[in-house]
Amino acid sequence: MPEADSMQKRFEIDFEPIGRRIDVDSGANLLDAAREAGIDLASLCGGSGLCDSCRIQIMTGEVSPATAGEIAALGERAIRKGERLACQTIPLSDLKVHIPPESLTSPQRLQVEGMELDVPLNPAVVSLDVDLDPPSLMDVRSDLSRLQAALVQAGVPSPIFSLPFLQSFCSMLRELNWSVRLAMRGEEVIAVLPRDAQLLGVAIDIGTTKVAAYLVDLLDGTTVAKKGAMNPQVAFGEDVVSRIAFANKSVENRVELQSVLIEAINTLILSLCEETDVDQGGIVDAVVVGNTAMHHAFLKLPLKQLGESPYVPAVSDSLVVPALDIGLEIASGAKVYLPANIAGYVGADHIAVLVSLGIEHVDKPALVVDIGTNTEISLAIGDRLLSCSCASGPAFEGAHIHDGMRAAPGAIERVRMIEGELHVLTIGDVPPVGICGSGVLDSIAQMRRLDFLDRSGRFKEVEGGEGGLFSEDGFVLVPAEETGHGHDLVISRGDVNEIQLAKAAIRAGIEILLDEVGVDSEDLRTVIVAGAFGTYLDIASAIEIGLFPEIPLERFRQVGNAAGEGARQLLLSNKHRGRAEQIADRVEYIELTVHDRFTEEYLQRMFL
Amino acid sequence: MPEADSMQKRFEIDFEPIGRRIDVDSGANLLDAAREAGIDLASLCGGSGLCDSCRIQIMTGEVSPATAGEIAALGERAIRKGERLACQTIPLSDLKVHIPPESLTSPQRLQVEGMELDVPLNPAVVSLDVDLDPPSLMDVRSDLSRLQAALVQAGVPSPIFSLPFLQSFCSMLRELNWSVRLAMRGEEVIAVLPRDAQLLGVAIDIGTTKVAAYLVDLLDGTTVAKKGAMNPQVAFGEDVVSRIAFANKSVENRVELQSVLIEAINTLILSLCEETDVDQGGIVDAVVVGNTAMHHAFLKLPLKQLGESPYVPAVSDSLVVPALDIGLEIASGAKVYLPANIAGYVGADHIAVLVSLGIEHVDKPALVVDIGTNTEISLAIGDRLLSCSCASGPAFEGAHIHDGMRAAPGAIERVRMIEGELHVLTIGDVPPVGICGSGVLDSIAQMRRLDFLDRSGRFKEVEGGEGGLFSEDGFVLVPAEETGHGHDLVISRGDVNEIQLAKAAIRAGIEILLDEVGVDSEDLRTVIVAGAFGTYLDIASAIEIGLFPEIPLERFRQVGNAAGEGARQLLLSNKHRGRAEQIADRVEYIELTVHDRFTEEYLQRMFL
Repeated sequence: MPEADSMQKRFEIDFEPIGRRIDVDSGANLLDAAREAGIDLASLCGGSGLCDSCRIQIMTGEVSPATAGEIAALGERAIRKGERLACQTIPLSDLKVHIPPESLTSPQRLQVEGMELDVPLNPAVVSLDVDLDPPSLMDVRSDLSRLQAALVQAGVPSPIFSLPFLQSFCSMLRELNWSVRLAMRGEEVIAVLPRDAQLLGVAIDIGTTKVAAYLVDLLDGTTVAKKGAMNPQVAFGEDVVSRIAFANKSVENRVELQSVLIEAINTLILSLCEETDVDQGGIVDAVVVGNTAMHHAFLKLPLKQLGESPYVPAVSDSLVVPALDIGLEIASGAKVYLPANIAGYVGADHIAVLVSLGIEHVDKPALVVDIGTNTEISLAIGDRLLSCSCASGPAFEGAHIHDGMRAAPGAIERVRMIEGELHVLTIGDVPPVGICGSGVLDSIAQMRRLDFLDRSGRFKEVEGGEGGLFSEDGFVLVPAEETGHGHDLVISRGDVNEIQLAKAAIRAGIEILLDEVGVDSEDLRTVIVAGAFGTYLDIASAIEIGLFPEIPLERFRQVGNAAGEGARQLLLSNKHRGRAEQIADRVEYIELTVHDRFTEEYLQRMFL
Repeated sequence: MPEADSMQKRFEIDFEPIGRRIDVDSGANLLDAAREAGIDLASLCGGSGLCDSCRIQIMTGEVSPATAGEIAALGERAIRKGERLACQTIPLSDLKVHIPPESLTSPQRLQVEGMELDVPLNPAVVSLDVDLDPPSLMDVRSDLSRLQAALVQAGVPSPIFSLPFLQSFCSMLRELNWSVRLAMRGEEVIAVLPRDAQLLGVAIDIGTTKVAAYLVDLLDGTTVAKKGAMNPQVAFGEDVVSRIAFANKSVENRVELQSVLIEAINTLILSLCEETDVDQGGIVDAVVVGNTAMHHAFLKLPLKQLGESPYVPAVSDSLVVPALDIGLEIASGAKVYLPANIAGYVGADHIAVLVSLGIEHVDKPALVVDIGTNTEISLAIGDRLLSCSCASGPAFEGAHIHDGMRAAPGAIERVRMIEGELHVLTIGDVPPVGICGSGVLDSIAQMRRLDFLDRSGRFKEVEGGEGGLFSEDGFVLVPAEETGHGHDLVISRGDVNEIQLAKAAIRAGIEILLDEVGVDSEDLRTVIVAGAFGTYLDIASAIEIGLFPEIPLERFRQVGNAAGEGARQLLLSNKHRGRAEQIADRVEYIELTVHDRFTEEYLQRMFL
């Protein structure tokens, strides 16, 4: 396959939130560019500008002016916000392009599965059926006095009502002919429902990249629907640090960062409700978990101090807040429970992970590693629980990688050398498009096993091309002729370095925690790997490159979206909320950036 | 003065909220019409359309199209909403015109005075000064944990924080260098203030026609500023019944009815703050009183059931609600206290009146009459407290009266016959413009004394014009040549009937209450007349026409805006809030519409 004419101008297009970068010749439109990058952008009219299915949004960079057809299809307001039809838009510079989920034909792989454990039912919100006397000219008590009297009779001596509840309950009482089911949170009345209504709750896990929601029946504990979506904040920055920087630029930015998140969550909830044919007003309880920045953004808490040393949260306690105050479209009197944050970079989602794992009962010493752009690590030994956080960067999520992409169909996730020939395995078993985090890590481990790499991450001189395994760009996983888009898929020297930086940060964190309690890594009885990346990771490869210490594979457990499962458990049981509080109280937080051994450990763990 | 050519077309213009109606010749512009009606509409450019000082709003009716100059001055959006320049606008039909307060050169007389009593200070919100340790990499506790620790040390074991507080406190702590004054409501932290800050509260009395606000220093009890404004809901209906009907037409109507009220209150608060050079964020407590409909509209509670039999409130209990939830622009963590409503038409404002009067200690049996479009009556005897409400209509506020207007400069408020000649006294001692409620009542009493009226309200044949005292329209208070606008100011036959209906309703209510406890009217030791109209009322005249029973004048007390004074007392003292609760609990509400003697009593009291 010949190289493209080096005289022709080329632009780099960064497709978000899928995280795929590609160089294109000038003159190509963005629909073609997306296809070349292996992204299944929808296009009902076949790229002739007649439908709006390939709608995308230009985040940064210059493009050709909007056509009259685009203005007609999208409207001037959308055009001003950078929305365009990919098939009509030609890059005039490097671009950052946002692809909304509805413009993708194949959805990204999202983490809503996880394991699901039996939880003894003890929800915060329960049902209470009451009958009221209707008002008459002989009995002109207010609606509230009437409801109070019925509650006192039902054994609730001092019922509590929020303003949002009071603003909505009168018409429900009348519609339901004064015979109703109440959703009660202790002595507080959350909602008036029909006599045969389900009591539903929603558990939400806000990740930096993805949001997962679970609709749960509080009366029988079943999960009636679950669904994932992209976190739309990705458009404002891939990681929390860049989003905080974005938010700090102006009040409008901060408001927008928060409102796109709430909007996405409301859309997710609405689609869960439509799928199961229930009313949002029947959702009477909610649990939300997320890292500290997502937690703060969700609650409209100030983000500024999170982004500057000493990186402190506004709030670390667990909270119960009115759903309406944050714009969550569920029962207007409902409350949202959020477990405690441990520190600026160890959030409520990590508490949820520890709850879902039953950290109190695992075989100890036990290590919990939740890998993401930011990686949280906890070490449980006896009654002690130590936690730290390290900036592992987005490499494991496929960003800053030559042919990197997120874990979506077509991403290479495993690499094996079988009888001298390289075999790749892709997500969805479709032709390879790019390489996701676990694929990059697996490739590097394979290169180490084949002795193509030295410990410092340098490519060794491999004699005679070794069957053409190396190109100028690096280690070739898939040659151009098999990719269908004219370029090799490679692991570059830079990719190896990115992974070295990421794994060094995580491994240094692990070693510091072990050192704090004076335990050798081989004494670890359990190592739990959580998070999306952790699920697809090959543990042997991770040990090979030094991400994890060398201990028997059977001591490792890979869990799915443990944070989401933790949120579900917190929704179903007050007992688990009590456990979350106890865990948060017990955690000893270790700030790595001021730890005297961290830098030394970090540099040392850079080696493969 | 000749009558206008009867062939020429004439339109009736109803100027609101001032409540002045006038007939004008077709072809006259609205600035001239307003001046003819004696309304001091501002006009900096002298009516040439060059400024926008005579801005008005057409509520109903047809007018000439907007000129290019008006579109330039006001903008298309305002024009679409019916805003116009009075000097450029010519009526093409009968009109209802709204005059915004800023277009009036002389403000209406509003009730913010009242008596002001010494209240022993015991406010719900008090101050607490604390110093916090700033965060560092060695101490990365969250801002909230830091604040909690300082509070525990200051003797607040379990401090409480609302979400709006949490959303705003971080930047204040930093700005004030971690040395702050806290506004505390029990264990709840309301606001973070500078160390030398005043603690301010606002007491608000929402009347159907007027809104009064008092800015009060919670640390020393002084009223630092007070101010009144029109209730902008007047544009949607003069009385609460028509406003409820308006709100029931659509959700948009209901939202608008509520939002114009909140907007007006926020504007009032802002102007109090500007006047005294304080920040709205320093207002850490609020008390709001109003009749049940105003109370419900303020809280966005449902109004529908208030407007249809059996007319029950949504809520009658006292409430404490977050200021932010209702859009009140004061400290974001502040709460609003609203005393209980007694019934659909005896509201929290009446409780405030009873509190401010010290009803527990007045010489009993005592009657309290708070006269307005709706009149609330309470009778205190021994430990009993009976209340009722009657629909007295807007006649006492100058509406539905031939030359009626509200109590504003130029309104005739007293009428006396001295040596055979009629003398009128106007508010502000300026040339007469119209007649306000107390003037109408006074005139009718005068006519009775002069024997111009029989008991049924019919004009007697008065021989030979009796010095020209009668015209075709009725009893002439001011002849056309003295009014400066070419028309007599008269009391018409219709006016007399309106007053008969109003006073019969009130007097019947008084008699029913007296009858309930078996007390004769002459046994009443105290009669307290409250409300705007009650202040200007001539008691002897009121007895003359049968509004009040015939008891010695010295047993009457006229109080000003007792509801506003009650709100101020509730703001300054938890003890008074306790009294308000006790009063609300004690009240026996009598529903007149189903009382077996009411109709008979009402018909009988129609006679003068």
